[in-house]
Amino acid sequence: MLKIAVDAMGGDFAPEVNILGAYDAASDNEIEVILVGKEDKIKDFLPEKKELKGKVSIFNVEDQIRMDENVSSAIRRKNTSMRRAIELVKNGEAHAVLSAGNSGAMMALSFLLLGKLPNVDRPAIATVMPCLKGHFILLDAGANVDCKAEHLLQFAFMGDAYHKALFNSTSPRIALLSIGEEHSKGNEATKEAYKLLQETNLNFIGNIEGKDVFFGSADVIVCDGFVGNIVLKVGEGLADALMKMLKREIAELITGKIGYMMIKPAIKSFRKKVDYSEYGGALLLGINGTSIICHGRSSAKAIKNAIKVATEMAKKEIYKRISESLTITEDINEGKDSLNRLIYS
Amino acid sequence: MLKIAVDAMGGDFAPEVNILGAYDAASDNEIEVILVGKEDKIKDFLPEKKELKGKVSIFNVEDQIRMDENVSSAIRRKNTSMRRAIELVKNGEAHAVLSAGNSGAMMALSFLLLGKLPNVDRPAIATVMPCLKGHFILLDAGANVDCKAEHLLQFAFMGDAYHKALFNSTSPRIALLSIGEEHSKGNEATKEAYKLLQETNLNFIGNIEGKDVFFGSADVIVCDGFVGNIVLKVGEGLADALMKMLKREIAELITGKIGYMMIKPAIKSFRKKVDYSEYGGALLLGINGTSIICHGRSSAKAIKNAIKVATEMAKKEIYKRISESLTITEDINEGKDSLNRLIYS
Repeated sequence: MLKIAVDAMGGDFAPEVNILGAYDAASDNEIEVILVGKEDKIKDFLPEKKELKGKVSIFNVEDQIRMDENVSSAIRRKNTSMRRAIELVKNGEAHAVLSAGNSGAMMALSFLLLGKLPNVDRPAIATVMPCLKGHFILLDAGANVDCKAEHLLQFAFMGDAYHKALFNSTSPRIALLSIGEEHSKGNEATKEAYKLLQETNLNFIGNIEGKDVFFGSADVIVCDGFVGNIVLKVGEGLADALMKMLKREIAELITGKIGYMMIKPAIKSFRKKVDYSEYGGALLLGINGTSIICHGRSSAKAIKNAIKVATEMAKKEIYKRISESLTITEDINEGKDSLNRLIYS
Repeated sequence: MLKIAVDAMGGDFAPEVNILGAYDAASDNEIEVILVGKEDKIKDFLPEKKELKGKVSIFNVEDQIRMDENVSSAIRRKNTSMRRAIELVKNGEAHAVLSAGNSGAMMALSFLLLGKLPNVDRPAIATVMPCLKGHFILLDAGANVDCKAEHLLQFAFMGDAYHKALFNSTSPRIALLSIGEEHSKGNEATKEAYKLLQETNLNFIGNIEGKDVFFGSADVIVCDGFVGNIVLKVGEGLADALMKMLKREIAELITGKIGYMMIKPAIKSFRKKVDYSEYGGALLLGINGTSIICHGRSSAKAIKNAIKVATEMAKKEIYKRISESLTITEDINEGKDSLNRLIYS
C-alpha cells in the first residue's frame, strides 16, 4: 500500500476535482490518499463511497497558497495545505505528494523541504508528452529559466534515468533541442552542452530541431526551462487551435456535418492521445523524494491519473535511481573535467 | 515595374522550383524576375512561355553556396549566385532579393552588402504565421540566438513598423513571448525587456504564453532567435504530426473512409491555411534593402508567393518605414535612458 498526499486546495477547480480524483484513484487496491486542506470545505464535496472508507483520509490545514501568489512570500507561511502535504513525505507519512496549485511554490517548497539529491545542481520539471511514435520526455519544462551547459548536462542524466525507470528502456536516445542539427548550431549554452554530452556514456544522438520534436525522433529532449515551458505550451495551445480551425472548415461544407459524425470517434480518440490530463502531471527530478506538479486546470481525471503516476514513481523510487545513476556516472568518469564540473559545481 | 533578383541555385529543389516559381510570378504585370545562377543549368528547366519573354532574364554566375556550407567561408567567395543576387539590389539593378538557400549565409551577406539601418543593432528575421484569428508576426525567428533586453526592444519596434506596413494597421498589439503573464515571469532578458517596453509608446500588451500564440492574442510576438526558431518549427512539425495522428485514427474506423472523403475539402483548405508556402518567406528586418529568406524546402508555389511578397515589400519600401519609425522613436524619447541604450549602443 502506498500513501499519496494530495494538496486538496491547489488548482483552478479545487477542492472538488481533487477530491473526486482522489476517490477514483483510491479504488485501486494499492493506493491510499491523504487529502490535505481545510476539512470543512473538503467535507462538502466528499462522495458517498463507503467501500473506500479508510482509503481516503483528511489532514486538516487551515491556510492555503493562492494560484497567483508571489512565491517567496507564499512559501514562508507554515500552515498551508501545500507545505503540509510535502511535509508528510518528508516525515515518512506519505510516499509521494502532488499539487495542481501554484507551481512555482510547489517547486520551491519541494526543494526546500525534501532537499536536492547529491550531485544535482538544479532540479528540473520532466513532462511526458505524446508524439507520432509513442511518447517522449521533455525537460526542463519550466523550473530553470536561465541555464548553463552544465545544467543541461545534468538534465540529460536525470532524463536518461527517468526514461529507463518509466519505460523500462535500456538506452534512451537523448537529444538537445536546438535550431539546427549540426553541433555548431544553437545558443552558447546548447553549443557547449553538445560538447559535454559527447563525452558522456549517454546515448546522445545530437541536436533535434523543433519540427522533429513531435515525430518521436528522440526519447529524452533536453532544453532550458524557458524554452521547454514555451514548447510545452505551444504544443498544448496549437493542438487546440488546429482542431478549432479544422472544425471551422468542416462546418462550412455541406457534407461536413455527416462527415464529422463519421470521424468523430477518431477525433475523440485523437484528443485523448494528445490530452495532457491523460499523462498525470510532471515529475520534479533531482529532489530527494517523489513530488508531482499538476496542470493548474487539472480535471478530476487528470488528478486521478497524476495520483496513479505518483504511486508508480514512488514504488519505483525513481529519485533513488537518479541518484544512483549520477553516482555511477561520477565513478565512471572520474577525472574528466566536464563531469567534475557537473558534479562538484 | 519591380525587378526581383532570385538566387536560382538556392534551396533543396533548386534550380527547378525557383525557375517555375519565377515564371509564375512574372505573369504578374508588375513583376520582372532576374534568375541569378549557372546559365546552362537554368536553361534546362526554362518553360516555354513566349508571352513572358523579357520578363524573366538570366544573370550568369558560375559558383553557388551549398545548403550545409559553413557560413564564414561561404560568404567569402566572390562569385556565388547568392552574393551576386544581393549585389543587384545593392547596385540598384533590382528592388528586392530572395533565396531559399543557406539561410545563415543569406543573412550574413544581406547584412554585409546592404548594411544595417541606422539605429538598428541587430537585424532580425520576421515571419508571418497563421493562427485562429488571421495572422501574427513572429520575430526574431532565428537571426540572433543570444539576445539582450535591448535587442528584444529593437525587435518590437521593427515588428511594429512591419505590421503597420504589411497590414495597414495603426496600433498592432505587441507581446513578449514568455512563461507567464506576470511581468515577473521569464528569463533575465525578457524580464528586463518588459520594463523597457512599458516605457515606450508601443501598444505593448505584456507577456504572452506559448499556449496563446496560435490563438491570435497578439499581432507581433517578440522573442530571441533561438526561441523563435524553435516555436516556428515546432508549429510546422506539430501541425504535420497532428494531421498524421488524426488520419491514423480515422483509418481505424469502419466509417472512417467515407467520413474522410466528406471532410476532405475542409482538410485541404485547412492545410492551405497552415501551409508555410502560402506565406512566401521571411523578411530580414533592419537591413537597408529588401531581402527575403525562403524555406529550404520551398516549392515552386512558395517561391512564387515569396516573389510576390518581395515585390509588395519593395513597393512599400518597408525598410525605409522601419528606419523612419526608429528615428521618430529616438526623437520622442530623447533623454530616456532605456531608449538611449537602444539607440546608441
